[in-house]
Amino acid sequence: MMPKKINIRKKFDRFSDYWSPKVIAEMNDYQFKLARLKGEFVWHNHKDTDEVFIVIEGKMKIEFRDKTVLLNEGEMYVVPKGIDHKPFADEECKIMLVEPKGVVNTGSTISDLTSENDVWL
Amino acid sequence: MMPKKINIRKKFDRFSDYWSPKVIAEMNDYQFKLARLKGEFVWHNHKDTDEVFIVIEGKMKIEFRDKTVLLNEGEMYVVPKGIDHKPFADEECKIMLVEPKGVVNTGSTISDLTSENDVWL
Repeated sequence: MMPKKINIRKKFDRFSDYWSPKVIAEMNDYQFKLARLKGEFVWHNHKDTDEVFIVIEGKMKIEFRDKTVLLNEGEMYVVPKGIDHKPFADEECKIMLVEPKGVVNTGSTISDLTSENDVWL
Repeated sequence: MMPKKINIRKKFDRFSDYWSPKVIAEMNDYQFKLARLKGEFVWHNHKDTDEVFIVIEGKMKIEFRDKTVLLNEGEMYVVPKGIDHKPFADEECKIMLVEPKGVVNTGSTISDLTSENDVWL
């Protein structure tokens, strides 16, 4: 069966929880996920994979051990594998993540913010 | 060295040719590419990989053997591997592609529109 087209912004209407990525599409063994961010996440890394952040609406920051990157709407960032990072957003921010299927949002850091994986919208 | 953040729309200012994808980022062995489309592409498929289209500005169509999908700004589509498709755009359209490094724009169809691969902005 052929996939349907996906309106990225409209998909956000279908969930409201923070820090809980939802899958909207799969390409080979990679997934595109949407998430709403607000407040502070936990320090973590993904030891086996890079992770792409794309800001759809709002702004966010990614804190690294040696610097902080501010991402505005329409900007993207590739977090290299194994690099500690902590996303945060003062105001609500809507993002799209691209990463291999199976990646857990908090990496190897188990936290109250660790969310269920592979949840589709 | 840590990557820099990427402003997707601004990157389009750096090229003007059509049907010639430019790499803006790499995630593991995948690449994010920008392209300007105008007019009609060639029928082709990618036998080993899915391919993601995301419309950044304007609108485009993807013709398949049995249907045509219209993509507006902010919409995405996953073309499954091996499926014949022919992108086209009546007016100029700016898109982002996500696919494995090494994918040739015309697949196994060699054409005047076959463009050099792995060209970075």
